[in-house]
Parts: sequence; structure tokens; C-alpha cells
Amino acid sequence: MLTQRLLILLVTFITSINVINAQAKKTTVNSPDKNIILSFWINEAGTPMYACTYKTKDVILPSGMGFTIKENFSKTFLPSLRFNLAVIKTEQQSVDEKWQPVWGEVKEIRDNYNQLTVHLTQTNSTPVLMDIVFKVFNDGVGFRYEFPQQKNLNHFTIADEYTEFHLTGNHKAFWIPGDYDSNEFNPETTNLSEVDASKSLAYNQINARAFFDSNAVQTPLMLKSSDGLYINIHEAALVNYPAMNLHLDKTSYTLSSRLVPDAIGNKAYLQAPAKTPWRTIIVSDKATDIIASKLILNLNEPSVIKDPSWIKPQKFIGVWWEMHVGKSSWDRASGKHAANTANVKKYIDFAAKYGFSGVLVEGWNVGWEDWFGQWKENVFDFVTPYPDFDVKELHRYAAEKGVKMIMHHETSSSVTNYERQMDTAYRFMKENGYDAVKTGYVGKIIPRGEYHDGQWMVNHYVRVAKKTADYKIMLDAHEAVRPTGLSRTYPNWMACEAARGMEFNAWSTGNNPDHETIFPFTRFMGGPMDYTPGIFELKMVHWDSTKANNFVHTTLAKQLALYVTICSPMQMAADLPESYESRLDAFQFIRDVAVDWDDSKYLEAEPGDYITVARKAKGTNKWFIGAITDENKRSTTIKLDFLDANKKYLATIYADAKDAHWKDNPQPYEITTQVVTSKSQLKLQLAPGGGCAISLFPIE
Amino acid sequence: MLTQRLLILLVTFITSINVINAQAKKTTVNSPDKNIILSFWINEAGTPMYACTYKTKDVILPSGMGFTIKENFSKTFLPSLRFNLAVIKTEQQSVDEKWQPVWGEVKEIRDNYNQLTVHLTQTNSTPVLMDIVFKVFNDGVGFRYEFPQQKNLNHFTIADEYTEFHLTGNHKAFWIPGDYDSNEFNPETTNLSEVDASKSLAYNQINARAFFDSNAVQTPLMLKSSDGLYINIHEAALVNYPAMNLHLDKTSYTLSSRLVPDAIGNKAYLQAPAKTPWRTIIVSDKATDIIASKLILNLNEPSVIKDPSWIKPQKFIGVWWEMHVGKSSWDRASGKHAANTANVKKYIDFAAKYGFSGVLVEGWNVGWEDWFGQWKENVFDFVTPYPDFDVKELHRYAAEKGVKMIMHHETSSSVTNYERQMDTAYRFMKENGYDAVKTGYVGKIIPRGEYHDGQWMVNHYVRVAKKTADYKIMLDAHEAVRPTGLSRTYPNWMACEAARGMEFNAWSTGNNPDHETIFPFTRFMGGPMDYTPGIFELKMVHWDSTKANNFVHTTLAKQLALYVTICSPMQMAADLPESYESRLDAFQFIRDVAVDWDDSKYLEAEPGDYITVARKAKGTNKWFIGAITDENKRSTTIKLDFLDANKKYLATIYADAKDAHWKDNPQPYEITTQVVTSKSQLKLQLAPGGGCAISLFPIE
Repeated sequence: MLTQRLLILLVTFITSINVINAQAKKTTVNSPDKNIILSFWINEAGTPMYACTYKTKDVILPSGMGFTIKENFSKTFLPSLRFNLAVIKTEQQSVDEKWQPVWGEVKEIRDNYNQLTVHLTQTNSTPVLMDIVFKVFNDGVGFRYEFPQQKNLNHFTIADEYTEFHLTGNHKAFWIPGDYDSNEFNPETTNLSEVDASKSLAYNQINARAFFDSNAVQTPLMLKSSDGLYINIHEAALVNYPAMNLHLDKTSYTLSSRLVPDAIGNKAYLQAPAKTPWRTIIVSDKATDIIASKLILNLNEPSVIKDPSWIKPQKFIGVWWEMHVGKSSWDRASGKHAANTANVKKYIDFAAKYGFSGVLVEGWNVGWEDWFGQWKENVFDFVTPYPDFDVKELHRYAAEKGVKMIMHHETSSSVTNYERQMDTAYRFMKENGYDAVKTGYVGKIIPRGEYHDGQWMVNHYVRVAKKTADYKIMLDAHEAVRPTGLSRTYPNWMACEAARGMEFNAWSTGNNPDHETIFPFTRFMGGPMDYTPGIFELKMVHWDSTKANNFVHTTLAKQLALYVTICSPMQMAADLPESYESRLDAFQFIRDVAVDWDDSKYLEAEPGDYITVARKAKGTNKWFIGAITDENKRSTTIKLDFLDANKKYLATIYADAKDAHWKDNPQPYEITTQVVTSKSQLKLQLAPGGGCAISLFPIE
Repeated sequence: MLTQRLLILLVTFITSINVINAQAKKTTVNSPDKNIILSFWINEAGTPMYACTYKTKDVILPSGMGFTIKENFSKTFLPSLRFNLAVIKTEQQSVDEKWQPVWGEVKEIRDNYNQLTVHLTQTNSTPVLMDIVFKVFNDGVGFRYEFPQQKNLNHFTIADEYTEFHLTGNHKAFWIPGDYDSNEFNPETTNLSEVDASKSLAYNQINARAFFDSNAVQTPLMLKSSDGLYINIHEAALVNYPAMNLHLDKTSYTLSSRLVPDAIGNKAYLQAPAKTPWRTIIVSDKATDIIASKLILNLNEPSVIKDPSWIKPQKFIGVWWEMHVGKSSWDRASGKHAANTANVKKYIDFAAKYGFSGVLVEGWNVGWEDWFGQWKENVFDFVTPYPDFDVKELHRYAAEKGVKMIMHHETSSSVTNYERQMDTAYRFMKENGYDAVKTGYVGKIIPRGEYHDGQWMVNHYVRVAKKTADYKIMLDAHEAVRPTGLSRTYPNWMACEAARGMEFNAWSTGNNPDHETIFPFTRFMGGPMDYTPGIFELKMVHWDSTKANNFVHTTLAKQLALYVTICSPMQMAADLPESYESRLDAFQFIRDVAVDWDDSKYLEAEPGDYITVARKAKGTNKWFIGAITDENKRSTTIKLDFLDANKKYLATIYADAKDAHWKDNPQPYEITTQVVTSKSQLKLQLAPGGGCAISLFPIE
């Protein structure tokens, strides 16, 4: 209705005023390597349009851009920022810089792009100004909208954003259903024509979710075209704005932005000068280029933390998986409370013995008897431990053993309650020796009516990142909005969950065997995930006779490989100490593997099928290789030409045993060693649902 | 629709199960003096019903009670708590106690009532239990719903409350329009049949308001029946529940509860055991009994503050009215910033010289350039003064002069922002010598979609009262929900605004001349108001030549009388120091008058027409009398028989001059003195819109 009204208005305008910009006059900008060409123009309706190609192939066909905006306080719509726009001027510039992340996959990142800035104006008598900025990299395009400080626009409401991604056809898609609250869905692999977000709802055990459209998917959306292009659509630097879902028009294969609304249906409240997140299109004819891309990090602002010396990438263990498997419980009423002083000391002992720097404890604070699924506002207070959890004594004990405790703050999505207590909670943490916090947002959001991925919550997550930084606390946020590269700006924001984690294997239908081969192309595009790998006791029936149908959908060797295929500066060894102590040979890989890297080589990858990656541990000459496959077995030969030419390395290969299989026989593994050089090749055999992990230590 | 379904269900039930309670079997309970009879029964639909009489006259005809409730997390309705209920048992008890308020109108309050508790059950197979508790006092009835701890009900949502007040006819009503956000309306006086809440919207300059129904009014609602009954309907102890508006059915003159919804339309989220606020019906054949009633205070819980010695009733002045009259500004961009160190020192000097204990300063903290009407979340931080406001120096200066500073916290209704900072803000206050805070909630609420009077905000106001108490800070809340007697429980919660304050006279159509004769019967029923009386310079054109149409709608003498007719432990002398220094004779009354009382005598009153009250200052033998009238002049003779029989008193009478008139000639006053005893009578002459103030000091 609105659109029709605006079109009518538009016709009036076009006949009555002088549109500044010649229609269909295109401005183009190339990537530095000239492979990508981005075009921008204003069409006959006054709509900003763009398109892009990669090596002459169309990636995005002509696609519209723009907004409807309102006044904040009334419901009055302002003139459209979607139609009837004209170009005032355009500017171009080229940038080629390098920067060093605090932690990550590589020591140094090149930021190299050509930029086009388009200054637009409405063509009415009190025109609003809007800029669109495109950055064209060798591996894709990022663009955002900017609202400069101006006379005719101060506070305003984004009613809708109309950014389109008009695809060339019925691509293969790796998708999860559009949703305002959750991203913990099993990813689907279908052609676009088969996307059905309503179908996915049926078989996912997800507590809070907000379905809104059968034809909607979330980003990062991974696509593969029939002409061999790998395309990834996401966003970067999501700050003070809602997350973007994508609506799919199956007649034209056009994706268009669907911003997560607030409690009353508005999308964002902005004040000029303001800017949206970057909309990103990463493209290549090689799948490995997609997962190696640093485009999203490059589109984020530099770190605001001047001295990051207190930020310490780390492996940790924790009182957590034993609750998921049913051995113990978060609450005390159950009579099997895990977070008791004696049990935690066992974990501290284990961490100290095997070289883990952190011990996470969940269920330490009172309130777990009535925390779940009731939209209750006053749940946890973050400073009141259960009486059997001795904070002071554990602080003393951990310090004596050289181990740091990691605190858990389950907000139960009562975010108003958490915000009231954040300062108190973080002070309590520091007083008791905690330098890292795992936050949780299980359940429906309070303020009621808000969603996990709306503007208000996006601002909350960033607020937590800033405030934890103020207290020199590292942050690992679970059930938060999926990341968009903000760990560059807030490098204490070590990891997020924001996807279907390992724990679903413990009590649900589990994660598909191709799960870990998809999400480096989807969820991980925005940043590290705390996926909690390292499960050795793969069948839950080991812990609980009622859990015959619950098991981890990988082999044990694949669990090891995940420490390399997944990049995160906070990696958990998630299984119980006893699971490791009975398999110390395999556990050695987890002890050895790094979590921060000087270099990463994506040797081979195909979304949904396999990934093989080699990474060089930060500040060392040690390499680690992880190779994983989906439900199909796989054999592959990898060249070690990334090794130093003049060195010998001892390769320790943690492989699936010959008869291993994710479903029927996941446990067996074989560990072999051999001496290799940069000229060596390794033939790897991966079981169905299996993997292979390799450490390569230089021989002095 | 729902109702129809439930009725059908009900019929099925009634025929199939054994309803415990004989229909129409009434239980009655009398007031201690037997004047009021309250009846309760279950009607043929299984609906709880009540009625009450006063001296054999009907007050409330048979009226329904009950709820629809839902599960919190889904939208599933649970079986109705409005139909199909049965009585398990009833209990009665009598109470006659006394208690001493920390401050107030009288030294001691008698709490004397007969109580009926009705234990109800649903008549299905998994019945929910609900109790209704009635307390019948000599001056009215209070009742509330209680949800005991029970097997079949834990967390639940109130979808609607159906409490009815079926009146006997087309009473005269003193009402303001139903609204979710504001109570700053000019009160209307009409018969019920003429209530039109939509009409009132047109002529009120109110920033945030949420109209929902033309036939809705707010409480406290004051009624006068044609057979001479004064009836007041309100609520007591509003905690963890939304405020109640009243829908008026003009065919039957039935009022029914309309709870303020939250952002998604729910009314309240409760967990058993839970209880609603008390619904109150105060009734008498004497108007003075209504305003003298302590029923609402009696229905509140005793004070939670064990040592209230730090709570100090006080008169204060402040940097405030000079902004409203246009002399200066809250913000600095205007170039006439009032809250500068030099100006504040003048106020401190004035306070010290004339014996005021507090100085309020508004506009002291940065952010006033862009705080208003844009639904902006990050506005004020409550710890960052403007550079021309020297917090430390003013702390030193005020302490030297023996004056306490009062801080202003304008939240601009960005409550999430305020809640994040409350601890920090209150610490900052205490560090800088502030013991009292005036909070403000101008504008639409954030969390967006919430209303000023919904459950979430009600909880916020109480949270502020508790937290300020933790910091030993006295609280004066503006634009908050109207009070319901909670100052008994939190006696640091000295005052609220929650009505159309004095400042509307400075820049709007103003307050009607009968305003102050109505709101002791409406707004004040719940507790003290910071109405900011004491305006001597009544015509705004004195300050600003453009304000020819803005003036205070009273005489000067009435401004003095308000210090007695209005009872509040925090009373402002709101005008500018210069306004007082040029009329020091009249100002003497403000200097003399008390703010805390051992006794109060309501000598005469008629809502909307006049009020005369005498009060005895706490811990002294000094009396003060205030008499006010509406737009009509008035002469009245009052007996001083409340004075000590054996004492002489010097009466100083601050009266309207002969030709005074609220509109044309408001300023002239006459001050006379005479010696009086308890046998004296005083003849008072009140001008149209006028008043008279009298101090009675014992002659030793």
C-alpha cells in the first residue's frame, strides 16, 4: 500500500521537478585486481541501483537500495529514501594498508580496496541527504548507507530498509531460517527454490525463536551458482542497528533486507550523522577464498583497546558438559549440583596438570531452580553463589595452581536485570580473580517485545563488550546476535556462540554430520565461535541410559580436527576430565594445539562437504592441520609446501581408524608419526563424518 | 468471542461436576461501625460478585470480579478465573491496631477493619486456586486478589482483569481521561454520562500520552451521588502490577478495570504466590471524610526502613521556576543557562537566610540541548555537570551555609539508560552531599512500547524507591505513576508529581481555578504531591513580554493556603528569590508553615468548590489553617475549637484583599493579626479563585 502511494507521489514529482541526475548514468568502480566491477546508478524511479560482476560473470543483477523513514515520536512517514533520489556528486579513492589483529588467523591483514562514495539527495523542497559508500575489494564488495549531519534530518526512525541482492539464478544455498531470536538451527542445503523456513522449525529444539516468513533466511548466507561462483552475503560492523534477515523472492531470486523489528515494529532509531552496518558480498570461484576472506574484518573499525596485553587467547575446560550429558545439574534442587567446591577443584587440578589456563563454571550462582522459559525478570544476581560454591576458596585454590576461573553470567535474556547489575557483577568478578566471562541469553528477551537480534539488543551486546573491556574482562557471548567482525574493534570480545553448538548433540536430534563443513562458510564469516569441541565420549548413553538416541555426530578424530578448522581465541576442551584421562594419547593434540595464529592456509574446501586447513601457531614454527568431511568418507592428499623449506618436522597424525564411522563407530582413532619436509605429501583417509588432525613440530 | 466460548464451556461443566458452592449464597461483612455492609457471592455463571452499602444506601451494585490468564511463554489461555469458580471456604477476622507514620498528616493512624477472605477454586480437573480478601473499614472497602502457592499455577500472565464497580446512577464525577502514559490533565467535572476522554486530549499540552478509550477515566476517581454519597475509587499498594484505568459503561454506569498493557499487550507477569494491589472504595456522606481517610495507607505494608532518622521533611527552593517562566534555560546552548555556580550560590544564600533546608537545581548535567521528545536512549549520564556548574565548590559552599543540595535526575523516560546508571548516580550524589533526588520521566518510555503506568515501570519506580533508600536518599518522583500509599512502606519516597503541576500555568492554558479544590479528592488520595506552590509573581508577562496569556490561576493568598491544603513532606517555595524578597510579609507564612503534622482537621470541603483544613505542626503547639475556593468567591466562618482550651494564640491571617480576583487582580493580599482561643470563630472572605492562610502560634 505504502509503496503504491509512494509511486504515485513519485510520478507527480518526476513531472514537476528537475531531477538532477541523468537516469541510467552508471558509475563503476573496480576491485584492485580488476576482477570485480561494481556499478551504481539511479533508475527512472529515482531508486539507487547497484550491480556487480566477478571475472565478467554476473554476481548481483541490478538491485535496488533505500529506506522508508519516519519521525521518531509521531508515526508520520517522511518522504521516501527509496524513490525520487538524485546524485549530487560521487567521489572515489583507493586504499592499500596493513594492520595487525590482536589475535586471529594471521599475523597481518591487508586492507586493499577502491571506494566509491555517492552523495544523494531527495528531490523535494526540504531534501534529506544520504550517502552510499561502496568498498570494492579483490574478494568482494561492502557498502553502507550514511546519513550526514544536515539541516533536514536529525532524529529519525528506520521504518524499513530495501537493500536488494538480485541473484542470477536458483543457486545452491546453505541457509538457516530467517528468525528474529535464534540462529541455533541445523543448516539446510537446498537450491533457493526449495527454501522453506517454516519447515525447519519443526525439528529444532530451540527455546526462543521468532519465525516471521517462510521465504526468509539469515546471513551469513552461503551460495554457489551453477556457473561456479561462491557467493557469501552478510554484514559487517553491526552497531546501533538491527540484524538483517533476507527475504527471498523465488520468482526473481532476489534477496531483500528484512531488519529485525523492535517491540512496536520499528527497525532502528537513528540520529544524523549516522551510518548503517556494511552489507557484504564476498565472491570467488574458489571456495577457500571465501573462508580466507578478511573483508568483514576490514570493514570494521580498528581496536579501541589501546593496550591489549591483558587479552589472552586461551584453551579452557569447564563444569558444563557434565550437565548437558545428564550426569549433574546447574541447580541444587536436583541433588546433583555440579558447581560445588570439591568438583570445581578437580577441574582446577586437571587444568593445572594438563596446561589449560581457564576453568569455566556454570551453575555457580543461585537461581537455577526457576530460571528457564518463564520470561521472568528477576532471576540471577551474579554475585550470590550457591552455598556449596566457595568463591573465595576457589579463588585462592585456582591462583595457587596458576589457573584462572571463567565466570558464567546466564542472563536468561532478562537483559534489563543484567544491565542493572553489570557494574556490580564485573566488580565482583575482578575481586575474585575472574578475567573472562561467558554470557548467556537463553529465552525470550526482557524488555518484552524486543528480539535477540533487534537494535536494542545489538546495542546491549556492544555495551557489554565495552564495559567488560573497561574492567579488562574477556567476553564469550552465547545466544547473542551472530558476529559481524566487531572483534576487531573490541578484541576482548573473544568469541560468540550464535549458532547451533555442540550441546545440541547431547540432548536433541543433534547436529548434522556436515554441520562443521558448512558453518565456516556461514556463521564463522563474522568471527570466532565457542563451539566447544573435543568431545571424546561420543555416545551419551555412556552417561545416561535414557540417552540411547543422543550422540555426537562426528568421529573422535574429527573432534580433534575441529580445533584447527574452527578458529577461536577461546577454545574449550569440552568433555569431562575422565574422558580425557582415559585417552591421553588423543588428548595430547588438544594440549598441543594453538588458539592464536601467525598464518592460516586454506588447502581445500567445499561448503557442506569438506575443509582442510593448516595454521601456524603464533610466535612459533609449529603448524597444525585440520581436515574434516561430511557424512561421506574422503581421501585426500595434501602438500606441505607451506612449511619452511629447510626444516624437518615431526608430524603426528591423529586419524580415524579404518572402520570408524560417525554413527556406528565414532570412537576409534589411530595415531602415527612421521618426519616430513616442505616437499612431503600426506595422504589422509577420513571416515564418514570423520576428520584428521595433524601437529607438525620442527625438529631442532 | 472468548467470553462466549467460556460460557459454553461453563454450561458443560456445571452440568457435569459438583459445584461446591450454592449459587447466590451470600457472605456479608460489616464495617466496625456497621455503616458499611459488604456482600460476596458466586453467581449462576460461577463469577465472583460483590456489592456494598453505606448506611443502607447502595454504593456498589452487584459487580463481577476475576481474570483471564495465560501461560507466560506461549499465548495459550488458561481456564478462566472469571467464570466457573466455586468457594472452598471463607474466613473472617477483625483487626484494630494503631501505627505511627514516619511523617504525614497525623501522628498516629488507626487501622480498624473486618476482613473476609474467600478461597476460590476453578471447577475443572486441574483447578487453579484464587483468594479474594476484603477489608471493610468504617470509611470504605479494600479488596484484592491473591494467588496462593499451588500445584496448578506457577508463572502466569494476567491477560485481563475484570473488576467491576457497578454504580447506582449517573453520578457527578471528577475525572481525568484514561491514559497509559500521563496524568497531567486538567480535571473535568461532569456527570458520568458526559465523560468523554477523547475531548480532553485537545486542550492539554502533554508530551507523552496514550489515549485508548473515550469512555475511560483514571483513578483516583471522585464521585458524588444524587442521594448525597461521596465515593472515591482508587487502588492501594500498586507493586508488580500495572495501574488500573476504569472503563465506563454509560448504559449501566458500571466501571470496569482496564489495566495498562505492556509492549505486547499483556498486563502483568506474575508468579504464585502473588497478589494484586488493593481496589479501594472510600465512601461517606461527608466530603471531609474522604480526604481525611487513611484507608489507602492502612492497606499498604508497614515501613521497610528500620531507622528512618535520616528522612527529613523539608521545605526547599530551587533553580526551576525561572526556567518555566522563560527567564533562563536548562540547556547551555540558549546562552541563559540557569544552573551556573554563581546563580546557584544566590539560591543557597537565600535558603540559608530564610531557613530553607534544600536547594534543588535542574539543568546541572550535560545533555539538555537534545533531550526532549525524540525517544533518544542515551541522553543524560547523571554524573557529568555542565562546565559552569561546579559540583565540588557548591557542595562546599552549601555545607558552609548549612543547606543541602537536591539533585535532579531527568531520565527523559529513557529508563533503561537510568537503570544502568542508578548506582553510579546515587554514589555520585552521596559523595557530593546530596540527600534527596527529584526524578523526572518526561516523554515516551524506553523500553519502547512500555507505558509510564505499566507493570514494568511500576516496578521501576519501586526499585528507585528501594535503591534510594539503600543510599539514604529521599525521593520526589515526577511524571511517575500516581501514588497508591506506598510512602508508608518506603517513607523516603516523600512525594510524587503524577498530576498537572503548577508549571502548566507558566506556559500552557494553565490549571483551572478549581484545580486545587479537586485534587485532594483525586490525586492526593494516594499520597503527597510536589505541586510547587508559593508563586507570588502570578503573571508570566512580568518575566516575558510574550507570555501575556500565561498566568497562575489563583490569587496570591491562595498560593499561601496551598501549603496547608496540600500535604507533602517536601514542599517547594517555587518562585524566584526576588519575588519573595519584594513581599517578605506574605513570605513569612511560607517560612513559618510546617510540612509534617501531628494532627489535621478537615473543617469543611466540597470537591471542586472549597476546602478548609487546620493542621498542627509536628512536635509543637502551632496550628496552620488553609482555606481555598474555586472560581467563586466565598465567605465562611470557622470555629477554632480544635485549639487547646486553656491557651491563647496569635492568629496571623493572610487573606485576599477585598478586590482580589484570580484572573484580573490576583496579587493583592491583606495580613492581619488577632489573639484567639478555642472559643473563637474566624470569618474568612475568599476572593474568586482565592484563599486564606492562617498561622496560630500559642502565646506563652
